[in-house]
Amino acid sequence: MRRGGKALILVMDGVGDRPTEALEFRTPLQVARKPNMNWCARHGSNGIMDVIAPGVPPGSDTSHLAILGYDPSEVYTGRGPFEAVGVGLTGKNGDVAFRCNFATVDDEWNILDRRAGRIGGPETVELSNVLGKIRIKGVKIIVKEATEHRAVLLLRGKELSPFVSDVDPHLLARVAKSTPLVPKAKKTAKAVNDFVRESYLVLKNHPINQKRVDQGKPPANILLPRGAGSFPRIQSIKDKYGVESACVAGVSLVKGVCGLCGMEVVEVTGATGGLDTDMNAKANAALKLLDSKDLVLVNVKAADIASHDGNHEKKVEVIERLDRMVGLIRGSVSPDTIIVLLADHCTPVQLGDHSGDPVPVSICSNNTSKDGVEAFDEVSASLGGLGRIRGKDLMPILLDKMNMSKKFGS
Amino acid sequence: MRRGGKALILVMDGVGDRPTEALEFRTPLQVARKPNMNWCARHGSNGIMDVIAPGVPPGSDTSHLAILGYDPSEVYTGRGPFEAVGVGLTGKNGDVAFRCNFATVDDEWNILDRRAGRIGGPETVELSNVLGKIRIKGVKIIVKEATEHRAVLLLRGKELSPFVSDVDPHLLARVAKSTPLVPKAKKTAKAVNDFVRESYLVLKNHPINQKRVDQGKPPANILLPRGAGSFPRIQSIKDKYGVESACVAGVSLVKGVCGLCGMEVVEVTGATGGLDTDMNAKANAALKLLDSKDLVLVNVKAADIASHDGNHEKKVEVIERLDRMVGLIRGSVSPDTIIVLLADHCTPVQLGDHSGDPVPVSICSNNTSKDGVEAFDEVSASLGGLGRIRGKDLMPILLDKMNMSKKFGS
Repeated sequence: MRRGGKALILVMDGVGDRPTEALEFRTPLQVARKPNMNWCARHGSNGIMDVIAPGVPPGSDTSHLAILGYDPSEVYTGRGPFEAVGVGLTGKNGDVAFRCNFATVDDEWNILDRRAGRIGGPETVELSNVLGKIRIKGVKIIVKEATEHRAVLLLRGKELSPFVSDVDPHLLARVAKSTPLVPKAKKTAKAVNDFVRESYLVLKNHPINQKRVDQGKPPANILLPRGAGSFPRIQSIKDKYGVESACVAGVSLVKGVCGLCGMEVVEVTGATGGLDTDMNAKANAALKLLDSKDLVLVNVKAADIASHDGNHEKKVEVIERLDRMVGLIRGSVSPDTIIVLLADHCTPVQLGDHSGDPVPVSICSNNTSKDGVEAFDEVSASLGGLGRIRGKDLMPILLDKMNMSKKFGS
Repeated sequence: MRRGGKALILVMDGVGDRPTEALEFRTPLQVARKPNMNWCARHGSNGIMDVIAPGVPPGSDTSHLAILGYDPSEVYTGRGPFEAVGVGLTGKNGDVAFRCNFATVDDEWNILDRRAGRIGGPETVELSNVLGKIRIKGVKIIVKEATEHRAVLLLRGKELSPFVSDVDPHLLARVAKSTPLVPKAKKTAKAVNDFVRESYLVLKNHPINQKRVDQGKPPANILLPRGAGSFPRIQSIKDKYGVESACVAGVSLVKGVCGLCGMEVVEVTGATGGLDTDMNAKANAALKLLDSKDLVLVNVKAADIASHDGNHEKKVEVIERLDRMVGLIRGSVSPDTIIVLLADHCTPVQLGDHSGDPVPVSICSNNTSKDGVEAFDEVSASLGGLGRIRGKDLMPILLDKMNMSKKFGS
């Protein structure tokens, strides 16, 4: 069998949406000017994809696992470990990892800002260092900053369990207590609660926070863990499919998923995981990786951020920037390289959260069937020749188009 | 996440069909004048649905289970218990329930009319009372009339088994003997056969039947049990999905399915489950229920009856009546209420029975993508943006459109 082409998957995080009155019952993708995405749609096969299953809103972690061909119900163990790997922490067997937010609370631990004003940069590096010095009996504490207000907490010790509840209540309420979800998790829940109390004591009067208060900014005076998980054993993409792969992403969660799947995770200057991310830098990094890899996944978070912020105009603007990125990619790759455009989930602006709507998918190369679809959007894609597929079917379909699939039978 | 809209599912029982020469190779849905259903199609997402699986003809019980999000292969235990709950019989653990027909037999038990001229009303109430007085050793007998010629038999006693064959041969043949399908079912099969013999003895000379014979009507001189089943334990829709739900239906089987799924089953005057049913009364009842419920399912049996009767013209006429019902509904609900039009199965008139063809589905509200489909029929729907889905995926899709789904991952 001829070993074949290469593929670039562009995950436009949360780009799918629903028709909304604010846009005259069209979606941001339908409204935005996006000649390059439409070019891909016209030169490829289009469809819609239930990333997990029909009607099930995916997280960004479970969605990327599915897109990479894994069954999230088999390998997903909670957000923590994926976030940990994404920030460069190597977990050991028995470790329990948590995704955390730096947050702002009052004296009675009522949450005033779940993201401490989206603090980030050198401030969270310094505060994470301080938190890493906290001592809890019988448990080693490791803290590492992630994008913006995010951080990772790793507990290492004997008889720890990932089955503990979140301290972060996910809304503006009082900080919750972590409770054991199974009897064996008592020690872990206590360690988490002890750590959170210590984090408040260490952070509340820290000079960085005093300075933030002076500047009228919300202080990052507590760390709120959630998404406990142990480190899953995931067969690498190389072992599973025989392809060399790499990932370009700004947010640590996606880096973590790709890292745990054995992809090379490339750091790109300017890839912030925020609205200010340098999309062209990411495109150029991906194009360079295609020289040596079979498969490159690029995640751009910006459309999802605009959606969570409830901003239609911003989302349309992000889509038009993404389109220029697609233009750069399609102008640079060889014509038999497969370009896949898709979202990891829909994030309707009006909802401000992930939905379970299917995402649009376009698979385009000069060897792909053209199905007459003229535009890359939720409705046009739904009428395309790819039909309605599942997230975990994408990789097998792609491998086959790369002439790297294995025959079943003879 | 914002809790969202409400949904009304209109199950047009057996409305799907196949192209037939009698209608110039079109289907009744393609022929009927139905501006309101077409309005829904134009303002919504359309698709086709394999209610159970491709090519598998669903029963009305298994189809409604699937439409409500259950896997019939897990929860379906036979028709009897669903029919029993539908007529208001509460089954105990260990009971075995049968769906039955009042039928007409000759002296040698050859069946002359499987439905005793579609007897019903006060006659079957009286005859069921008489049958309930039959005594079988070690088994308590409960008989209750259902719609038209239908009734329910419930056996209560020790060591009963649902694994017995049907007495009703489902065609014009000799009455069959119930046989045990497993060794432990011997007692039950004997009880059923004893009961059927007694039913003949009690019914053949009953004054009601003497009067029927005098009037030239077929007598209901035997009761034929079939569809033995034990009472399944089904997680309620409230527990499964967190929604408050109700059902409006004429036929007891659908009432029973909805009742066993924990839905409020509302009795509507004029909802007969027959061709004479008051569709507007059902629509109005459903609209009123939407004030307090998240989800309302309405079943109208009429199109299925016309199909079983092999009457194309009648089916077209029923569809046009159904269309006026859809008009009443769409003119009354708020624009963000989701209207779902579908069939529970196809019942091609030419076949006179359920087929495994996929059914057309239209999901319509002002927040649903419009996919360019212009009409509600089998072919138009198959070209729509919803693609080809499975019955049990409908509820998750609907819950997500109601903003009541749960994210998997983060």
